[in-house]
Parts: sequence; C-alpha cells; structure tokens
Amino acid sequence: MQQNQIEMQVLKKHNFGAGPCILPGSVLQQAANAVVNWNDSGLSILEVSHRSPEFESVVLKTQLLIRELLNVPQSYEVLFLQGGASTQFSMVAMNFLQGRACGAYLDTGYFAQKAIKEAKLFGKVAIVASSEDKDYSYIPDHFETPSDAAFLHCTSNNTIEGTEMFSFPETSAPLICDMSSDIFSRTINVRDFDLIYAGAQKNMGPAGMTLVIAKNEFLNSVKHALPSMSDYRVYRDNQSMFNTPPVFSIYVSMLNLLWLREQGGVTGIQLKNHKKSELLYEEIDRNPLFYGTAMPAHRSKMNITFKMHDPSMEAEFLRFAAGHGVVGIKGYRTVGGFRASLYNALPLSSVEFLVQVMQHFEKEKTMVYSMGTQIAGS
Amino acid sequence: MQQNQIEMQVLKKHNFGAGPCILPGSVLQQAANAVVNWNDSGLSILEVSHRSPEFESVVLKTQLLIRELLNVPQSYEVLFLQGGASTQFSMVAMNFLQGRACGAYLDTGYFAQKAIKEAKLFGKVAIVASSEDKDYSYIPDHFETPSDAAFLHCTSNNTIEGTEMFSFPETSAPLICDMSSDIFSRTINVRDFDLIYAGAQKNMGPAGMTLVIAKNEFLNSVKHALPSMSDYRVYRDNQSMFNTPPVFSIYVSMLNLLWLREQGGVTGIQLKNHKKSELLYEEIDRNPLFYGTAMPAHRSKMNITFKMHDPSMEAEFLRFAAGHGVVGIKGYRTVGGFRASLYNALPLSSVEFLVQVMQHFEKEKTMVYSMGTQIAGS
Repeated sequence: MQQNQIEMQVLKKHNFGAGPCILPGSVLQQAANAVVNWNDSGLSILEVSHRSPEFESVVLKTQLLIRELLNVPQSYEVLFLQGGASTQFSMVAMNFLQGRACGAYLDTGYFAQKAIKEAKLFGKVAIVASSEDKDYSYIPDHFETPSDAAFLHCTSNNTIEGTEMFSFPETSAPLICDMSSDIFSRTINVRDFDLIYAGAQKNMGPAGMTLVIAKNEFLNSVKHALPSMSDYRVYRDNQSMFNTPPVFSIYVSMLNLLWLREQGGVTGIQLKNHKKSELLYEEIDRNPLFYGTAMPAHRSKMNITFKMHDPSMEAEFLRFAAGHGVVGIKGYRTVGGFRASLYNALPLSSVEFLVQVMQHFEKEKTMVYSMGTQIAGS
Repeated sequence: MQQNQIEMQVLKKHNFGAGPCILPGSVLQQAANAVVNWNDSGLSILEVSHRSPEFESVVLKTQLLIRELLNVPQSYEVLFLQGGASTQFSMVAMNFLQGRACGAYLDTGYFAQKAIKEAKLFGKVAIVASSEDKDYSYIPDHFETPSDAAFLHCTSNNTIEGTEMFSFPETSAPLICDMSSDIFSRTINVRDFDLIYAGAQKNMGPAGMTLVIAKNEFLNSVKHALPSMSDYRVYRDNQSMFNTPPVFSIYVSMLNLLWLREQGGVTGIQLKNHKKSELLYEEIDRNPLFYGTAMPAHRSKMNITFKMHDPSMEAEFLRFAAGHGVVGIKGYRTVGGFRASLYNALPLSSVEFLVQVMQHFEKEKTMVYSMGTQIAGS
C-alpha cells in the first residue's frame, strides 16, 4: 500500500464523530484560554460565579446570538437546560401530555422511539406514522394527526439512521421538534414550531447543556404543578438561572455561535454543509464498494450513513481509514456500517480527504482482485 | 490609606466565591491543555465521543477515585448525573417518596427548604425539626423521625447560613444527605447514609455534573416506573452513560480528585481546611468590627458567614476588600453581610490575606474614629 498517494496531511485527525463532535479550532483555543484566565479577570471561567454580571452577560449574549442566527420571534423564549434530549423526552410529556387527551408522535427512528417510550409514562401516545417497515430509511409524509392531540412530536434529523426532514408536517396541533443533530446547520422557520429542543453537543457546543426554544403562549398553556427543574416556566422566569447552570458549556456555545456568525450565519453554513454532503453522497453512489442506506430524497446532510456491498470488508476499511487519521465513522452499533457526521465545524477538506481514502481503498481492492484473478488464471 | 502595608501580592485574585468556586491552578492548566489537544490524541476533550474507550476510562477512573477518597463500600454505586442538587430535590422524592407514607426532612436552611418544597409534589412531608426560629444559625439535634418515614433527608452543610452538621442523626430510616458544599472537604462514613448527592461545583469540579453515591439495596427498593433520566437505576445499569454525559465536567473532576489525592486525600485536606477556618473565625471573634452569624458549635468550615456591628460599613468593606483582589465574599442576598467560602482549592495564604485585610480595615476605621474624637474634643 502506498500511503503517500494520499496527498493530504495524515497526522491531523479528521473527526467525523456523531457527537460530542468537532468544534472549530479557534473556538477551542479561546475556550482553553478562558479556562486559565477568562478575559484577563484573573479567574478561570470555571471558577466565576454564575450570578456575576460578567457571566450573566454571557448568558444574555448567547440568547441574543441564537435569536439572531435562527431569527427567533419575540414571542418565543430561548432557554438553557441540562440533561440533553433524553431529559426532554420526558419533560415534554410531563408539561404538555399530562392531563391531556394524547400526544402524537412521528416515529422516524431510534431517538423518536425513545421519546415515545418516555411519553407513555405520562399519557396516551398516538403514533401517526412510522418508517420502521423499511429500517427507518425514509421520512413518512402522509399521515393524519388525531384532532385531540395535545401536540405532534417529530425528529428533524435522525442521527443514527441518516435521514432528515426537509419539510415539516402541517398540522393544527402544536408542533414539537427534537432538532438535536441539525439545529444551526440550516435555516428553519421557528414559527412553524411551538417548541424546539436540542442537546448542545453537535452544532452548538460541548455536551452538558440543552437548548429549548418555546412559544410563550404554549408554555402558558401548562397549568399543573411540576418539579421546578422539569418546568419550562421556571427556566423562563429565572433567565435559565434557577440554579447553577452549566457555565462552561454555555460559554463555549457562545464562542461557537460567534464563529457561526462569522461563517455567514446559518444561511452561510447551510451552503457549505450542502456542498460537503453532496460530495460524499456522490462518492458513495459512484464507488462500487459502497452504498447509501437512506432513501435519496430523505438523506441527511449531517449524518451520512453507508455500508459496503461486502460486509466482510467493513472492519478493514475502518482500520484503513483510521490509519489515515479518519475517526468517528463507525456506524451506530445497532445499525452497523459507517456514519460520517458532517457537522458545521467539519471542513470541506476533511470530506475531500475521506473521499480520497474511499477511492484509494477501492483501487487497492480492485488491484488485489485483479491480481487474484491473474494468479487464479495463470 | 497606605495599601503597601498589606504585604501580600495584590494583583492575584483571592477567590472566596461560594460556587462555582476556586479550582487548583494546576488542574485548570491541565484542563486548558485538554481543550486544545487531549493526551496528544489530536482531538479536544470537547470533541471526543463519550463512547470511546479513552473517555470510558475517564469515567471509570473518576468513579474509582471517588471510591478511594471517600472509602465507598462495594455495596454502594457511584453515579454521575446532571442538573445539580436542585434536580436531586425532586428526583429523591420521585424515587423514594412516591407511593410511600412520608418523607422526613430536617430543615436547616434555604436549600433544605427547597428540597422540602419539591418533595411535597410527590407525597407527604414531615419536618422533624427546624432551626428557622433562630435564622438557621444552628443545627437542631433533638428530634424524632416518624416510624413510617421512607427516609430522613438532611443537608450536611448550609452554604448560605454557614452551618455544618458535625454528627448525623441516628435513625432507623434510610438517611439521604445533600452534601453539595462540603463533600470531599472532610471524612465521612458513607455507611451512615443510604444516598448522598452533591452538585460538583464546589470541591469536585466545574458546574454541570452531579455526584450520587447510593446504597444498591436502597435503589433496589424502588419498584415503580420512572422517566429514564429520573431513575437512579438507569444510571447504575448504564455506567452513568445512558445518554451523553457532561464530558468536560467529569474530566475536570477527575483531574481535581487526582489533585486531592496528592494533598493527602480527604484526611489531608481536612486538616488544612480546619486550619483555614480556625484562622478566619479567630479574626472574626477578635476584630471588634465583625461578628459571626452561626452558633460556634455549628460553624461551617466551608462557608464562613459574618457581619459588621455597624451594617452601614459593609459596603465600604466590600469595596476595600475588592480593591485588594478579594472576591466573592458578599453574603447571599437574603442574608446580607459576608460569606467567605474556604473550599479545598483555596490556599491558606488567601485566608491569611483576608485576615490582614480585615485588620487593616479595622486600623483605618479606628484611626478615623480616634481622629474624629480628637477633632470633636479639640
């Protein structure tokens, strides 16, 4: 094998991890500086009081950046929580399903199912449609929402299955969306939703915080008592500081959103993300060793899932890629194959490099095959 | 005013903040390095998968350090959660009060009251004793726990009121303790408790994670269904990785616990903490301008609360102290006065410095007073 045929640097890591995922180098450098001495305050960002005016302004600035980048209307709240999307699965149901007729769920994969499971503890669940029949390789688009549904819940991007919703259901029920793995990657119309939630650890920042964007009117529709930390109204009424928030995660998210603004905001990054995913899907479709697992019309631009026609080659390709500094492309354990996550901070050059690695592997395999044929035929 | 009379460096910050609080400089430096390039992996600690063997070993190592430092018996679990003590207030009740006769609570201050408030959503609460009659300046020690109590809940250190429990109730009910602000500061006998919880942001690490140490038998006594993220058994059965954990907070906690081990562990730090608090209480008792607010027998070694006999001087002393780099000593807003938190990472030299600042302020005030008397008498 002639590794030097791959022209790009081989020591740098190309991080295709599904999350916690790659963050911009400049953000990491600023974050590291703040861990030692934040803004020349003589204190680390890890040891400042969350009640200090300096940190309160970080929270406010992060909220304003989110409002600007996603064009969040004033009638919506921007809240910071903990516990990831997994906590939202039950919290959504505690707030909006408890005491109501039913919650409608669109079943598009592993995380949608998790949301459904948690909701069942708090009330009746109606699954409006499911793509389980075809291994969650598509997004169902013809379904009815029950008229008594308190909300319709969907998952905008299915991280494990590699599908993404490019249009959202039109329904009279309030729409709740888990956007954990594609928020800030493309433009959305916040007004289409009553509540959006997302774990931070993809395109927003480090693990440990959760973003919630919710229509105030929807929050006000909740009338029953709830544990404070499970009550969206408590976060709203206390500027997300009812208790000690995840200070560092919020701070690094602020840095990362400032970086996103420099990239031309969500509109700018969407163009780059489109280019990255196009390039990789083209190679998957061209390269005779690989095939994509999601239906073309529903292919995610964030998490590209693919397999090899000969599954026995997969472990070898993983090792080959790892040898060239490509990390994080192993598919989810229940699905197998590969998953390349092309989050905002992943440069186009990393995708170009992965394509080269795939082409190189193809050549090597073809050579081995033709040599094998030659030997067999000789 | 002759500032140069204070001999210590005046540019460095002396951080007496109540939390998030001071962390050792060496820990901050290591954490900063890991944010840029973790263990020469070419990846930031913020962008590694929580399912990678490298990070799994961080979780394991952190658990083992906690077991070693607190001498945790094998029959207890060590779990990492999110949401701080505020989430534990309701989670404890969801798990152990729901469906049972009553939960017994010892009311020793602001956070005990918060725990009580959240518990009431899930069942009957019996307050076994309260020190509210004397502004929470002591720990009640004669009380009965109802025979049908599912547990007795107490708060080992009252961060706001500056009191600490130096002995724990002997009761047949399982004992649950909020140790957020004094865990790892002194030796405890874990066997005295059925469940201990603590927000990390004092002596453990950065905000964003919660430590739970629970007797397995106690966890097994829970038989009802719970939301996954509110179910201790789910954390136990998934090695605290049911979902993406707060990666960075866990990692920095590991670094900080390694530092603690180098300090002679909990026994070693306890001696240092004792010395620090003795020194400050001595000055509070000696200095005619100040007085301590907690009853001497119940004075916290972590959060030293004190006031001035002349409250109109307090704002001036705060400014004076801040001018010398002393930060974080303002008392909690509902209590007023001062609070100096002497967490593990605060060096003795910072306490010595604060004592000097107090003495200097005293001299200045005495001089002004005697000059005023002279002028008045002349």
